[in-house]
Amino acid sequence: MNNFNFWNSTKIIFGAGEIASLSNEIPAGARVLITYGGGSIKKNGIFEQVTAALGHVTWFEFGGIEANPHFETCIKAVDLVKTEQIDFMLAVGGGSVIDATKFIAAASKYAGDPWDIIATFGGAVTDALPVGCVLTLAATGSEMNPTSVVTRAETQDKLFFNSEHVRPKFSILDPKTTYSLPPRQVGNGVVDSFVHVLEQYVTFPANARVQDRFAEGLLATIIEEGPKALHDPENYDVRANLMWSATMALNGLLATGTPGDWASHLIGQELTGLYGLDHGQTLAIMIPAIWTYKLEQKREKLVQYGQRVWHIQETDPNLIAQQAIELTREFFESMGVKTRLTDYGLDEKAIAEVVAKLKEHQFVALGEHGDITPEDAAEILKLAL
Amino acid sequence: MNNFNFWNSTKIIFGAGEIASLSNEIPAGARVLITYGGGSIKKNGIFEQVTAALGHVTWFEFGGIEANPHFETCIKAVDLVKTEQIDFMLAVGGGSVIDATKFIAAASKYAGDPWDIIATFGGAVTDALPVGCVLTLAATGSEMNPTSVVTRAETQDKLFFNSEHVRPKFSILDPKTTYSLPPRQVGNGVVDSFVHVLEQYVTFPANARVQDRFAEGLLATIIEEGPKALHDPENYDVRANLMWSATMALNGLLATGTPGDWASHLIGQELTGLYGLDHGQTLAIMIPAIWTYKLEQKREKLVQYGQRVWHIQETDPNLIAQQAIELTREFFESMGVKTRLTDYGLDEKAIAEVVAKLKEHQFVALGEHGDITPEDAAEILKLAL
Repeated sequence: MNNFNFWNSTKIIFGAGEIASLSNEIPAGARVLITYGGGSIKKNGIFEQVTAALGHVTWFEFGGIEANPHFETCIKAVDLVKTEQIDFMLAVGGGSVIDATKFIAAASKYAGDPWDIIATFGGAVTDALPVGCVLTLAATGSEMNPTSVVTRAETQDKLFFNSEHVRPKFSILDPKTTYSLPPRQVGNGVVDSFVHVLEQYVTFPANARVQDRFAEGLLATIIEEGPKALHDPENYDVRANLMWSATMALNGLLATGTPGDWASHLIGQELTGLYGLDHGQTLAIMIPAIWTYKLEQKREKLVQYGQRVWHIQETDPNLIAQQAIELTREFFESMGVKTRLTDYGLDEKAIAEVVAKLKEHQFVALGEHGDITPEDAAEILKLAL
Repeated sequence: MNNFNFWNSTKIIFGAGEIASLSNEIPAGARVLITYGGGSIKKNGIFEQVTAALGHVTWFEFGGIEANPHFETCIKAVDLVKTEQIDFMLAVGGGSVIDATKFIAAASKYAGDPWDIIATFGGAVTDALPVGCVLTLAATGSEMNPTSVVTRAETQDKLFFNSEHVRPKFSILDPKTTYSLPPRQVGNGVVDSFVHVLEQYVTFPANARVQDRFAEGLLATIIEEGPKALHDPENYDVRANLMWSATMALNGLLATGTPGDWASHLIGQELTGLYGLDHGQTLAIMIPAIWTYKLEQKREKLVQYGQRVWHIQETDPNLIAQQAIELTREFFESMGVKTRLTDYGLDEKAIAEVVAKLKEHQFVALGEHGDITPEDAAEILKLAL
């Protein structure tokens, strides 16, 4: 096991009806900016629950944050923060809304060019407004981590930053908020949380047994509960299990003492930046392709994954690994998320464009061994056609 | 799944050599009281590592904290804190040292009778000195939770308190510090962490699948690694896996959304208070007895435990449950921890004394259903003879 630091100070308030506890979590007298996305929260009663709990503060709202939130949109919110002297940010939505809110929180306290925050991967951040969350989608884990992904629409750059200053002070997770999600978002969320686990697990052995078993437990839970969320959308325990799985998948716990891959995320980010694919879609495309390309390096963990999570009975390690890849692909497809570039109308021409973006962003040494070059990425993308 | 709050702000610094990072964690200019136990840290080099990292502060020391730390000992330390104007507490040891240090930290800031802290189960605590830990024994989980157990020697009362004010700011977990532990402490530590998981898992089903699988993952890891720690004491990964298991077993994660039993702990506490049994010994005695007495209520989870953790192939639920109890007893015994009252020279006479103490402490409705009365406890103790 590698040495590690683990520190996660976000308070989680979990369960049906817990949006009401906002009244305890935001200081009286605060000037709160409620941020949200396309406006579904105004149709499904969530906005009403939130504002009902905010009787003790002055609140403003900023809607219209898009999936893969735009830097340009966030900058408009920063103007509002300054005009209205906001001192508390409340994200109500999924990962995109939370990520945007983290960026707004940091940019509102940053004196220089706000793009510096992204360009330094968060290193430039020395302060931020406090962030709280009401989560409405089980997927990204942003509700309990210090990471944010923002896209500059103008240049098609989708990039992340990390800063402890933007880690949510609290996140309210009411599984009922996810009942009304469209199937596409459910599928993407399941793939996203599943792949977060895989990125920290299907690498090479580190004899970190707790972390491996936690990973396997999350994967097994998502496999069991994911399809039920599509077919029985108002099953509370299903939604609760998926929501807690997604949070646990990327709150730092699985990363303790273990190597991480993240090539699927970083190559996938370029697919979203360039072509607007959903984040979950890019991961469903990249995972089987990267694993096929890197089968030899990843074989030992693929075998462990195949045996413990999929209960594959083969004895030949290569067969187990291949079956594990196929079962993973089938699982993604069963969630309604296609797994090939051509399923999304992309062909060989995309490969050079993605590779150029990887080079531009200096993502030239990816994967748990840091040995995936842009040329390797091109080979991987061919396997993903 | 039940509603829950989860909040754990302790920073964990894990791995070989990390004691040196004390220099980053304790503010310059602090006046630090190093607390420790019987003095083994002065023989195995840990004290030297700690003081070498404390060049930037003024430090004092308070040794001699006993296992199941005494209220009376803690009060002496409080005097030293006041005399030397200590403003940071650094526990170097296992759960007993950390628990004592939490109490000292709270009592040093408490104006009234310090026993109030215990008598109110922590409710009286409104402030405490900051606590940091260097853990030297994988067992209690105190390094990442707000709980402390203190014994009043004078009255043979062993009781716990909880307060967020005493939650460690940081804990340094270097698995190498556990290499030189005597087998009895290794065995007790393994039983203690194993039972912490069981208390939060072998109850009744709550459809909390992540929590169940995390519990099963910890149990499987402790079963695999525990015996190795006895036979191959300087195996780093074994010690690391046990240390991280013990911390995860009682840091609040398994308790999220699930019922808890804790009858073994509360009845066991009286055995320690009255007769001085090691904490791990009392748990090894109580678990098989309580499960046997409550087999019907616990059957569903005992079957899940038997199948998933012990891979029992029987089909009859009662047989699976019984075998699970037997395998658990055998595991404790294999760690050198005996599982019957008579193994420790106790007989029927102890039963009435324990029952009287339970009544005195108002522990009259124990277990996950709150239905274990002192009379039930007497029956359970008979099964433990």
